[in-house]
Amino acid sequence: MADIIAPPPGATRILGLDPGLRVTGFGIVDAANDRLSYIASGCIRTDDGTGRSLPDRLGIILNGVREIIVTYRPAIAAVEKVFVNVNPQSTLLLGQARGAVICGVVSCGLPVAEYTALQVKQSVVGHGKAAKEQVQHMVTRLLALATAPQADAADALACAICHAHGSSGLGAIIGPFARRRGGRLSGD
Amino acid sequence: MADIIAPPPGATRILGLDPGLRVTGFGIVDAANDRLSYIASGCIRTDDGTGRSLPDRLGIILNGVREIIVTYRPAIAAVEKVFVNVNPQSTLLLGQARGAVICGVVSCGLPVAEYTALQVKQSVVGHGKAAKEQVQHMVTRLLALATAPQADAADALACAICHAHGSSGLGAIIGPFARRRGGRLSGD
Repeated sequence: MADIIAPPPGATRILGLDPGLRVTGFGIVDAANDRLSYIASGCIRTDDGTGRSLPDRLGIILNGVREIIVTYRPAIAAVEKVFVNVNPQSTLLLGQARGAVICGVVSCGLPVAEYTALQVKQSVVGHGKAAKEQVQHMVTRLLALATAPQADAADALACAICHAHGSSGLGAIIGPFARRRGGRLSGD
Repeated sequence: MADIIAPPPGATRILGLDPGLRVTGFGIVDAANDRLSYIASGCIRTDDGTGRSLPDRLGIILNGVREIIVTYRPAIAAVEKVFVNVNPQSTLLLGQARGAVICGVVSCGLPVAEYTALQVKQSVVGHGKAAKEQVQHMVTRLLALATAPQADAADALACAICHAHGSSGLGAIIGPFARRRGGRLSGD
């Protein structure tokens, strides 16, 4: 693995997490004032086709989140609030996955911020009904990536960006493609 | 705290857990052949009236389960499968609590066995539609306790007893008040 560079002075490293039992997306950005820098993203996958038990899968999520935090040393985690599924059993499974994600974060002593999918989409795309592809597209542009991240990783990056916007007081898109809302950016 | 006595040779120490976001019950029994011994029981409570956040509560559950395991050194955890609530939001919250409970167990390297409420009641009371009070009553009798444990602690003890029954191949009540099913007990 490449050496991990610490965030520059004044920047906050944010870990975004999109919980799921099969795939949990993660994305890390450094936020400094009106600048966002991409650090890393990817997925924690629990389904290898061997029919792993639920406790095994939750353990993989827990340890995966902990490993990411130990590796990248973020200052805070922004975790997406999960949907209530039409299928109650799916809701229960997703809840357990989200419980494991949050346990991974709090067991490392990191604070947790929670955002709904609506808040994340509003912040990154500009409206709450954006499709998954729009989120991927905007994350790719906002972070100036060469290629679009995988969908769950993009959602996690979007959650980290949403937190950056909120904590910078902007509440909307920052960067070269910003549509400002609220006029708290200085200059132009 | 009193010194914790290790289980006698040939006995298996079982940790039963009944997950809940506000109250998680735990109960520990030593099982040796057709003998069950009560070791400890109680609750992990996350609601102190200060409006704790969900991540804080999940952290309390995670650390509570880990502390119990470090203290009592059980060999296995038997975790009750939670109900799907009529309210999807409640199901989601309960799922997250159960995720935290299981993470507490697997992070200590302990195996997890899962039982439905139906299986637990069947095993402890003899039928799957038993009321909470009947479970409390039978747990009290089976473990020869002077007083009935609190309801969530009793459910957790019942889950541990259910695992003991299953792993001893009895599948029903063991002890002075046993109604045997299957005739695999020797004697009388």
